[in-house]
Amino acid sequence: MNNKIKLIFLGGVGEIGKNMTALESENEIIVIDAGLTFPGDDLPGVDVVIPDISYLLANKEKVKGIILTHGHEDHIGALPFVLQQLNVPVYGSRMTLALVESKLKEYPKIKYKGVSVKPRNVLKIGAFTIEFIHVNHSIAGALALCINTPAGNIVHTGDFKIDFESLDKNPTDLARFGEIGKKGVNLLLCESTNVCRKGYSMSEKSVGITLDKIFSENQTKRLFVATFASNIHRLQQILDLAQKYKRKVAFTGRSMLNVSEVAMKIGELKYDVKNIIDIDSVDKYEDKELLIITTGSQGEPMSALTRMAMGEFKKIKLRNNDLIIFSASPIPGNEKPVYNVINALYKLGADVIYDELASVHVSGHACEEEIKIIHNLVKPKFFIPVHGEFRHLKTHKDVAMRLGMEERNIILPSLGMCLELSPNSIKQTGFVTAGQRLVDGIGIGDMDSNVLKERLQLSEEGICVVVVNINNVSGTVTSEPFIITRGVVYDDEQEEFVSSAKSAIVASLKEQDLRAVEPSVIKNTIRRNVSNFIFKRTKRRPMILTIVLLD
Amino acid sequence: MNNKIKLIFLGGVGEIGKNMTALESENEIIVIDAGLTFPGDDLPGVDVVIPDISYLLANKEKVKGIILTHGHEDHIGALPFVLQQLNVPVYGSRMTLALVESKLKEYPKIKYKGVSVKPRNVLKIGAFTIEFIHVNHSIAGALALCINTPAGNIVHTGDFKIDFESLDKNPTDLARFGEIGKKGVNLLLCESTNVCRKGYSMSEKSVGITLDKIFSENQTKRLFVATFASNIHRLQQILDLAQKYKRKVAFTGRSMLNVSEVAMKIGELKYDVKNIIDIDSVDKYEDKELLIITTGSQGEPMSALTRMAMGEFKKIKLRNNDLIIFSASPIPGNEKPVYNVINALYKLGADVIYDELASVHVSGHACEEEIKIIHNLVKPKFFIPVHGEFRHLKTHKDVAMRLGMEERNIILPSLGMCLELSPNSIKQTGFVTAGQRLVDGIGIGDMDSNVLKERLQLSEEGICVVVVNINNVSGTVTSEPFIITRGVVYDDEQEEFVSSAKSAIVASLKEQDLRAVEPSVIKNTIRRNVSNFIFKRTKRRPMILTIVLLD
Repeated sequence: MNNKIKLIFLGGVGEIGKNMTALESENEIIVIDAGLTFPGDDLPGVDVVIPDISYLLANKEKVKGIILTHGHEDHIGALPFVLQQLNVPVYGSRMTLALVESKLKEYPKIKYKGVSVKPRNVLKIGAFTIEFIHVNHSIAGALALCINTPAGNIVHTGDFKIDFESLDKNPTDLARFGEIGKKGVNLLLCESTNVCRKGYSMSEKSVGITLDKIFSENQTKRLFVATFASNIHRLQQILDLAQKYKRKVAFTGRSMLNVSEVAMKIGELKYDVKNIIDIDSVDKYEDKELLIITTGSQGEPMSALTRMAMGEFKKIKLRNNDLIIFSASPIPGNEKPVYNVINALYKLGADVIYDELASVHVSGHACEEEIKIIHNLVKPKFFIPVHGEFRHLKTHKDVAMRLGMEERNIILPSLGMCLELSPNSIKQTGFVTAGQRLVDGIGIGDMDSNVLKERLQLSEEGICVVVVNINNVSGTVTSEPFIITRGVVYDDEQEEFVSSAKSAIVASLKEQDLRAVEPSVIKNTIRRNVSNFIFKRTKRRPMILTIVLLD
Repeated sequence: MNNKIKLIFLGGVGEIGKNMTALESENEIIVIDAGLTFPGDDLPGVDVVIPDISYLLANKEKVKGIILTHGHEDHIGALPFVLQQLNVPVYGSRMTLALVESKLKEYPKIKYKGVSVKPRNVLKIGAFTIEFIHVNHSIAGALALCINTPAGNIVHTGDFKIDFESLDKNPTDLARFGEIGKKGVNLLLCESTNVCRKGYSMSEKSVGITLDKIFSENQTKRLFVATFASNIHRLQQILDLAQKYKRKVAFTGRSMLNVSEVAMKIGELKYDVKNIIDIDSVDKYEDKELLIITTGSQGEPMSALTRMAMGEFKKIKLRNNDLIIFSASPIPGNEKPVYNVINALYKLGADVIYDELASVHVSGHACEEEIKIIHNLVKPKFFIPVHGEFRHLKTHKDVAMRLGMEERNIILPSLGMCLELSPNSIKQTGFVTAGQRLVDGIGIGDMDSNVLKERLQLSEEGICVVVVNINNVSGTVTSEPFIITRGVVYDDEQEEFVSSAKSAIVASLKEQDLRAVEPSVIKNTIRRNVSNFIFKRTKRRPMILTIVLLD
């Protein structure tokens, strides 16, 4: 019997986001997570980024299921796109599947088969036997995996932290990690998001203590808390404080309404529905009787909170007696929009508390010492750091080596990398197609497409369109050239600019014999002349589109 | 005699950057600082942003001088643009003026009169008597100001911190702040950058201690330090360590070469020129004998370090035995490019130490407790927080109130705000034209110009150009429409897209009578149809440029 398996990294390595890893035995492929990334400013106009799953599609018959570690977007967000092409069962905790189902409502054509699993459940898929292990994270229902394979046991932590004081009195199941470690683990895949942070992460409970103090000190104010809808334990603490301080709760923001309802239905979130009011009826209550829980903690332009800050949210007008608490840190890259919203809130006279001013947020990811606990319990033969930029993976490797692992037993993965694992060896066998697929409006495009290069050039330099009519028998320009620029010339210079440009074009064309010349030659001449003309005036090289019409 | 003066805020309030404040007496205006801001992603293609000085230009005859608190770009960067329009003397420390002069070399037409001043010097400009006070900051030669005016004393801190262990054994001149406070200060303008940070800032010396440890632990490696060229005390500590560990120093990066030379000439930076080598000769030395001090700590695309990381720097190829130390934190907004460079360095096999991993940087701005020391010493009657986003100014106001100031004696300034100060009162009198001027290539444009809106639309949605030939006598489309798109359709769909779009245009034009119709009407019809056609296919609304040519 073949005791080798393959690992294929399709996302989440060398990057934060769009996590996806495949395990392949002789007859089966199982996929761990199917996440997305939100695009940065280098991808203008792109909605979301998902993994390239060409490899899975080329091996469609072998793919037997997708296993979700938890319900964050960077683990489930690509599912709608993946399921459209791969109709396989999806496994995850109740909370995870509840979030998947609510997401899939927008894709009624997808036939979805979800199988809910619990910690310590064991699931057999062909050559793979998967055990689920409870872990703490900034969402309920997060699971690590221990996968028994022909090549031995593989532990995948998913995203996790170790919260000994966890709100549900259910810390990460360290005992089980220890037992599995004792049985023998061939390979550990461990997340790396916070490996560069020394020490331990703070308990979720510490946020509750800070919030309690803020609620207690601001009893006459109307209170707002902005946080991540999926952070169920955070929501639970906030709802408990509302009860303690006798405030009615109004949820606002689509994901907040959605997740709070879903989580209550499956028992992850507990609150008295009598204390929940509709956002439309907040005016019936005094300030001190109200708590509004809202989306928008990341400064998202269309979120409820951002619209309140900009004065564009009809149902609530902010004022002097309001206190807005950001129970979240800006995700790297979101600092500017978040601070813009905070500045706008202050300008409306509201008071604001955010992570720079008080400990109103903790991370859901393990810091260095917590990561060491897992290494110590699992005692793997081989190790691969996952979920992180290269700097995180490299630092995680350094940590593992300080713990005694030999360098040759550690592999730094990159996108598309294929590994072969046997009971006694791990080796890199090559690369498959992998990378970023850009979801852009309805279309899905490639990273190396011209569309993005064009958009970036357009945004930096603008565009100039030139249309010239030429009679190539007489060799004359038969009408005045048309010139339109966008994003090039500041308003007060526009008119003079266009007329000088026209003269420059006509002058340049006079210098050559236009009879029987190929339009492409004339086009190039015009493009070069216009480009140089504009560069001389503006030190800019806008995109030049030239259209030559022959009479 | 008139005992009132005016204050006009032209920059640095409600924003970090482009600091500029004007004081106006009956016959004179003095300007404090003339800084720039580097544009964010919301200003694509813009080089730098400078204050709108319309008010100063409208009162040209009254402007008697520009006083610089220190030589950072957000305090001196707009000078070339300001001096082109206002030819007035510039006052500042030797270090500040040395940086100004090196900047003005690129503008040979500017007639520049710099007057160098020292701490405790007193300068009289008409009704204003200005005393300079030594303060610590992340650049040498930083000065606070005490300005005696007909309306009483005004203290302006400039940017500062309090470093009791300062490298030049010259902490912020607290005694002088105290003496001036005792004489009586009517108004304090105090910087707010780090007011949201509790406690005290760390001493610059602590960075030297960390760096010493790193040098000592990596004696066989080739060392690189990336830092801000203008942070003279940081450079001094690094140069001292090079001497201690017997390493030759090569500077690289234009500003690093420039500033290290300028600072040495005026005695702010002390080193043995025999230990400095040219970057071209690094290959003559062993790794353990070398220290390269470089620009690029902010991930700037054209900097020496970024080019090394990308393998595009010919003079130095990075490899396994290299250690790169980022002795700087990413300025908010620069995180992504900085981490991209760090990831690229790791991938080349080099080792990297940056602020997440060790204390290799301290801020140059006062934290909350340091700010309180200044308030306590100066004891102003009135207070205006400056240099900060609105959230910083508001938090600074809260701090001042906790120290006992009455709310009515504090003013939160905004761009263009004019205040009238008398010995016993301060009041807002209105607003003057103020704001952002965009330096873009050679031109200077306005914030509200269409150029930016166009560039942003182009970058998000792309552009589609349509050219149609119409004979408006016969009412027919006389040739196939031209369609060019950029940034709209992904490559594999391009051909089919263009041909469907052409058919859609021709079909839509058949529906109307084109005879004797205004081209603008036809244009609008086409634009609307093409826009809807594209939206249906892509959920995008690119910019549509329509050109109708009449035969």
